[in-house]
Amino acid sequence: MEDYDSTFKHYLNFVENRLIEIVKGREPNNLYVPIEYILLNGGKRIRPLLCMLACEATGGDPYEAVDAAVAVEIMHNFTLVHDDIMDNSPVRRGKTTIHLKWDLPTAILSGDAMVGLALQALASYANYANFGKIVEQFAFGYIEVCEGQAIDMMFNSREDVSPNEYFEMIYKKTAAVIQTSLALGALCAGAVEEDIDTLKDFGRYLGIAFQLQDDLLDLTAKNQKLGKRIGNDIIEKKKTLMVIMARERAKNEKDRHIVDKLYSKEEQIPIDSIPEYITLFEKLGIFFDIQDLIDSYFDKARSSLLELSKTDGTKMLKYLLDKINVRSF
Amino acid sequence: MEDYDSTFKHYLNFVENRLIEIVKGREPNNLYVPIEYILLNGGKRIRPLLCMLACEATGGDPYEAVDAAVAVEIMHNFTLVHDDIMDNSPVRRGKTTIHLKWDLPTAILSGDAMVGLALQALASYANYANFGKIVEQFAFGYIEVCEGQAIDMMFNSREDVSPNEYFEMIYKKTAAVIQTSLALGALCAGAVEEDIDTLKDFGRYLGIAFQLQDDLLDLTAKNQKLGKRIGNDIIEKKKTLMVIMARERAKNEKDRHIVDKLYSKEEQIPIDSIPEYITLFEKLGIFFDIQDLIDSYFDKARSSLLELSKTDGTKMLKYLLDKINVRSF
Repeated sequence: MEDYDSTFKHYLNFVENRLIEIVKGREPNNLYVPIEYILLNGGKRIRPLLCMLACEATGGDPYEAVDAAVAVEIMHNFTLVHDDIMDNSPVRRGKTTIHLKWDLPTAILSGDAMVGLALQALASYANYANFGKIVEQFAFGYIEVCEGQAIDMMFNSREDVSPNEYFEMIYKKTAAVIQTSLALGALCAGAVEEDIDTLKDFGRYLGIAFQLQDDLLDLTAKNQKLGKRIGNDIIEKKKTLMVIMARERAKNEKDRHIVDKLYSKEEQIPIDSIPEYITLFEKLGIFFDIQDLIDSYFDKARSSLLELSKTDGTKMLKYLLDKINVRSF
Repeated sequence: MEDYDSTFKHYLNFVENRLIEIVKGREPNNLYVPIEYILLNGGKRIRPLLCMLACEATGGDPYEAVDAAVAVEIMHNFTLVHDDIMDNSPVRRGKTTIHLKWDLPTAILSGDAMVGLALQALASYANYANFGKIVEQFAFGYIEVCEGQAIDMMFNSREDVSPNEYFEMIYKKTAAVIQTSLALGALCAGAVEEDIDTLKDFGRYLGIAFQLQDDLLDLTAKNQKLGKRIGNDIIEKKKTLMVIMARERAKNEKDRHIVDKLYSKEEQIPIDSIPEYITLFEKLGIFFDIQDLIDSYFDKARSSLLELSKTDGTKMLKYLLDKINVRSF
């Protein structure tokens, strides 16, 4: 197992070097310095790693997939830059967000340019027989993530968000790009249709599990591990599945009143009321049920891997999944 | 000649219908209604027309190029949405801009999603042998326009912009997308390399002529024809070639003082001082020289067409060029 970790490190080293090649020393500075700032500022690089492993799991050389891996990572970082503007977020990965460190036009434009850089990285496969499918998959992931963000914003002004709508939103906003990372890796390997579909299933389950876990950790993580304040989603009154469940389950007046605040346009949620929400969700059995749901999605992802041949690539995908499950990656 | 106008109408009718097909009835509404608002709100559609004519001029069926035409038009409109945010523009084509009619997140996100729609339109050519080149050309135009906008923004805080730098900026910001429209049309026709290069030259000259003319009309157009207030670039203190030339030519103290205001960070330029700038530029011979320059670029564009076979497509490109020259398209 030790071995896999060092393989991951090795793969991601290549990704890092390609990212550096792409952005370093480009002009104009007012465009590329902010791009370098977000792009070479760490991040776990889960998506590029999934991309390279998917390539290996379907019989390809993982290094063939480096440019696709880089393309999805740049796309992902573009969404972070623009989402941070839309959500008014001051900090990302411990550093001031671009629109605050520079200004709004710089953040909009550097995000925009990143999409072009991603597309150029993808164009490395221009002479692949299945380049058409590669571009289609990329465009699909890109549109899904835009639609997911739009639906998420729309939820802010809606009272009747259903669990199904929530699942559709996180599929689009989070899972589709993860799915695209895997599909692109497989396409770089020239994988057969069935294997691509299997990896898409894997990506969908993993992505949903990942987002549900993210929502849960917002209230249950140790502060220092989360890297941001506990209860941020509550303060922003996000309609997570936990909140939707709380609304369904809260029966007595006091509980309903606490939940209703999350649906009120006027009401502000002060930081010191976060423990109240934690206590309520705990009492309503929500943390327990969400953890159950997360486990079931990780299980589905794990099972889907059984469809692939038991190569090192497949084993490493399972190993990575297990690490993500316990948030040790 | 009458004939060509009705052909243009016919071609653009197809473009319009494809645009409608792409955006109508898509969800979520909060994303696609603003996109429909900007995309189906007129515009002269010069870029898609150039794309289809380039296809025809290089021996292709112009209707083969409709999806490429649609892709560049969507890309162009994406730049308008995001530029309007960055420039704080309240009105576009006589209607309130998206960030003011809706809000900032909506404008950012609908612009973003448009890039995905453009890419999906382009993916119609996924099974073309030269699809790789099609995507590379699209990515090139996209990155150039982002860099051009960044350089334009950078000019706001610089005092020493040279004529060469100005030409580089307008090449990237305006000409590269026009060039891309033409190159994509030719690629859809499966044109030979020489013809593609010829059309790229044509596009570069036309794009530069077009932008110089746009700058000039900012001060010399009849108000109602321009569709926006006269002297807008002066009020925004844009470093156009005319301003750069005025700075070089203004010798006496009074003239220098007028020009220096355009380079001052503090000074506001009131609307009623616009006539002062018009008088000064007239006196310094700038309007005359700029018109000369515009004519020379239109001439270069016209000459480059001589490299192509004299088909109807080529003749129509020349006809369109002449119409743009006198701003009757």
